[in-house]
Amino acid sequence: TVRNLFLLPGDGIGPEAMGEVRKIIAYMNEAMGAGFVTDEGLVGGSAYDAHGAAISEADMVKALAADAVLFGAVGGPKWDSVPYEVRPEAGLLRLRKDLQLFANLRPAICYPALASASSLKPELVEGLDILIIRELTGGVYFGEPKEIIDLGNGQKRGIDTQVYDTYEIERIAGVAFEMARTRQNRVCSMEKRNVMKSGVLWNQVVTETHKAKYSDVQLEHMLADAGGMQLVRQPKQFDVIVTDNLFGDMLSDVAAMLTGSLGMLPSASLGAPDGKTGKRKALYEPVHGSAPDIAGKGIANPIAMIASFAMCLRYSFNLVKEADDLEKAIANVLDKGIRTGDIMADGARQVGTVEMGDAILAEFKTL
Amino acid sequence: TVRNLFLLPGDGIGPEAMGEVRKIIAYMNEAMGAGFVTDEGLVGGSAYDAHGAAISEADMVKALAADAVLFGAVGGPKWDSVPYEVRPEAGLLRLRKDLQLFANLRPAICYPALASASSLKPELVEGLDILIIRELTGGVYFGEPKEIIDLGNGQKRGIDTQVYDTYEIERIAGVAFEMARTRQNRVCSMEKRNVMKSGVLWNQVVTETHKAKYSDVQLEHMLADAGGMQLVRQPKQFDVIVTDNLFGDMLSDVAAMLTGSLGMLPSASLGAPDGKTGKRKALYEPVHGSAPDIAGKGIANPIAMIASFAMCLRYSFNLVKEADDLEKAIANVLDKGIRTGDIMADGARQVGTVEMGDAILAEFKTL
Ligand SMILES: CC(C)[C@H](C(=O)O)[C@@H](O)C(=O)O
Ligand SMILES: CC(C)[C@H](C(=O)O)[C@@H](O)C(=O)O
Repeated sequence: TVRNLFLLPGDGIGPEAMGEVRKIIAYMNEAMGAGFVTDEGLVGGSAYDAHGAAISEADMVKALAADAVLFGAVGGPKWDSVPYEVRPEAGLLRLRKDLQLFANLRPAICYPALASASSLKPELVEGLDILIIRELTGGVYFGEPKEIIDLGNGQKRGIDTQVYDTYEIERIAGVAFEMARTRQNRVCSMEKRNVMKSGVLWNQVVTETHKAKYSDVQLEHMLADAGGMQLVRQPKQFDVIVTDNLFGDMLSDVAAMLTGSLGMLPSASLGAPDGKTGKRKALYEPVHGSAPDIAGKGIANPIAMIASFAMCLRYSFNLVKEADDLEKAIANVLDKGIRTGDIMADGARQVGTVEMGDAILAEFKTL
Repeated sequence: TVRNLFLLPGDGIGPEAMGEVRKIIAYMNEAMGAGFVTDEGLVGGSAYDAHGAAISEADMVKALAADAVLFGAVGGPKWDSVPYEVRPEAGLLRLRKDLQLFANLRPAICYPALASASSLKPELVEGLDILIIRELTGGVYFGEPKEIIDLGNGQKRGIDTQVYDTYEIERIAGVAFEMARTRQNRVCSMEKRNVMKSGVLWNQVVTETHKAKYSDVQLEHMLADAGGMQLVRQPKQFDVIVTDNLFGDMLSDVAAMLTGSLGMLPSASLGAPDGKTGKRKALYEPVHGSAPDIAGKGIANPIAMIASFAMCLRYSFNLVKEADDLEKAIANVLDKGIRTGDIMADGARQVGTVEMGDAILAEFKTL
C-alpha cells in the first residue's frame, strides 16, 4: 500500500510539532511497512511570505490529491495586518471548504494525569470524554453575502450570513449518530432555535434524521447558550455533542479548556465517503494555535499534533490498533511524569518538544 | 416624583420572584416616599394563553410609556410547540427591539458566600466581578433575511443574517468605556474578525471609538472563541467585556455559571438617553429562566429579581444609595446563612421564596 500524506506545518510551533510526527511516520514505514509517502507545503503566514496567499494553488492541488492532510497551526503577530483575503486563517478555511471537510471531530478528553490542571474541580473533569461534532463547511463561516458596505455619512455595514440546507444538517447529524453508536450512544444537539431560523431547521432535521435512521441512539436538544452553561456546570453529562460551525467553534474551545489538556487535544476534519472508493478526504490538526510566543524555542508540546496523527491512522487508514497504541503511548508517557512546560506538575520531569516526541516514540515501539 | 414601573412577571417562577420585589416597592413608597406607581401586564406563555401573542399591543404601549420595565421570565414546556412568531421568547425580543434597548449589562459577580458553589476552583472565582456589555438590538437576532425557504426536492434552507452598522457598534462601545471608567478602567472587546466581516467592522469601530474619545481606558481585543476559553481559564483577568448579541448570549451565560451565583444574577437592558429629558428606556430581568420544574412551589430564589430591581434603582432612577443598600441587604442575608434550596450549603438555614424576600426586606430596613 501507498499512503499519501500531505504535511502543512504552518506557522509558529506548527513546524516543531510536525517534526515529532515525522519521526513516528518514519518508524512506521521502517518497522511496519506502513507505506506512508509524504509531501510538504506551506500554509498561513509562511505561505503568505512565500506566495502572497495563505495557501498556493499548487499546494491546494496536492492537498486535494492526498489521502490525508496533516495541519500544524497558522497565524502570528507578524501577519496581524495583512489584508483579510490573505490572512493566515484563510488558508485553513479554504482547505476546509475546497476539500469539503464538513465534519469536524473534536474529542474533549481529560487525561487522568492532568485532571488537576483543569480550572474546574477535579471531580467534575476526571474521566471526562466528550466528542464534539462541529459542522465545518457551512453556516456563518461561508454564507453569502459576507461583506462590509460603505453606506456613506461615515457609516459602514458589516454583514455575515448564516445558511444551512437540509442535506448539510442531515449529513452532520448522521456522523454524530454513527459516532455515538461506538461510544455511549447519546447525542445532544445544540442550536438557538428560539432566535434563529437556521436553528429551527437544524432542530427539525436532526429530529427527523434520528427518527428515520437512528432511533436506537438517545437524542437530546439543548439551546446553545444553555449548552455552554452545562459544559461548565456538569461536563460529564455529555457524550456526543453536535452543533453548527460557529457554536461549535465556541463550545469546543470551552470544552477543550475544561479538560486541562488544551495543549494535547487533536481534531479530525472529514469529508463524505467517495461514492466509488469509499475514501474520505481528511485533515488533522491540533486544537491549539500557533503559540508565536514560544515558537522556535524547542519547548512546545507536540502531543496534540501526535494525537491528531493517531486520529489520522484511525479515520483515514483504518489502522485502529496503531492508533490505539499511539494514544496509549501518550498516556503512558504522561503517567511516567514526563511533561513539557505547559503541563508541568510537581515531581514531574520537564522536557522539550524533541524529548517528548522521542519518549512517545520509544513507548510506542514497546506496544 | 412619580416613578412609573411596568411589571411583566411572565411565566414559571417569574410571578413568585416578582412578588418579592413588590414588597420592596411598597416599603420604599411608604417609608421613603419613593413615589413608585406600578402597573402590570402579561408576557410570554401567559400572554399567549390570554391573547394569542407573546405580548399584547396594549402592554407594549404601557411598556413604552413606563420609566422602567421589570421583567420576570418566560417559557415552559406548555408552549414548546406554539408557532415561532408567538413563542414566549418573542415577547422579550419585541420589548428589546421596540424599546431600543441596545445595551445589555450583565454583571457576573461571585458572592463570597457562594464561591464554593462554583464548578471552578474557588481561588479562580473568589472576588470575581466582571461586567459583560452585550449589544442587544442588532446582529443575528434581528437581521434580515431571517427565514426558512423551501427549495423543493425535500430540501429547505434556513437563513439568518448578522448585520452591524457603525453607529450600533459605536454606541455600545461607548457604554462599555463609560462603565469601565467607573470600575477598573479596562475593556476587552470580543468578536470573530478572523471569520466574520461584521467582526472586522466591530474591531475597527471599537478601536476608533477608543482612540477618539476613551483613550484613557485600557482596551484589549480577543477572538470570541479564545474569550470563552479565557473566561473558563482565568476569569478574573477581565473587567468589562463588550461583545455582540449572539456572542454576548453565549459568553454571559458561561460567565454567569462560573460565578456559582447563577440564580442570583441580575441584568439591565438600556436604551439611549432621550435627547430632551435625558431619560433612558430600560428593562430589568434576572439572567435565569422561568424554571418550570419548580414553579408554583414557593421555593424559587428571588434574589436575581431583587438584584435586578437594585439595578433599576441605580440606572433608571439614580437612587444610588438605595441600590447599594439593597445589594448590601442581599449580601448580608447570604452571610447570615439564609439560603433557598438552589444555593443551600452545609450549616445554612433553608428558606422559601417568601422568607428570602422577607429576610432581604428586613435587612434593607436596617440600612
Ligand atoms: C483559525 C480559525 C479560523 C478557526 C475557526 O474559527 O474555525 C479556529 O478557531 C478553529 O476553531 O479551528
Ligand atoms: C430567551 C432568549 C431569547 C434570550 C436570548 O437569547 O437573548 C436569553 O437566552 C437571554 O440571554 O436573555
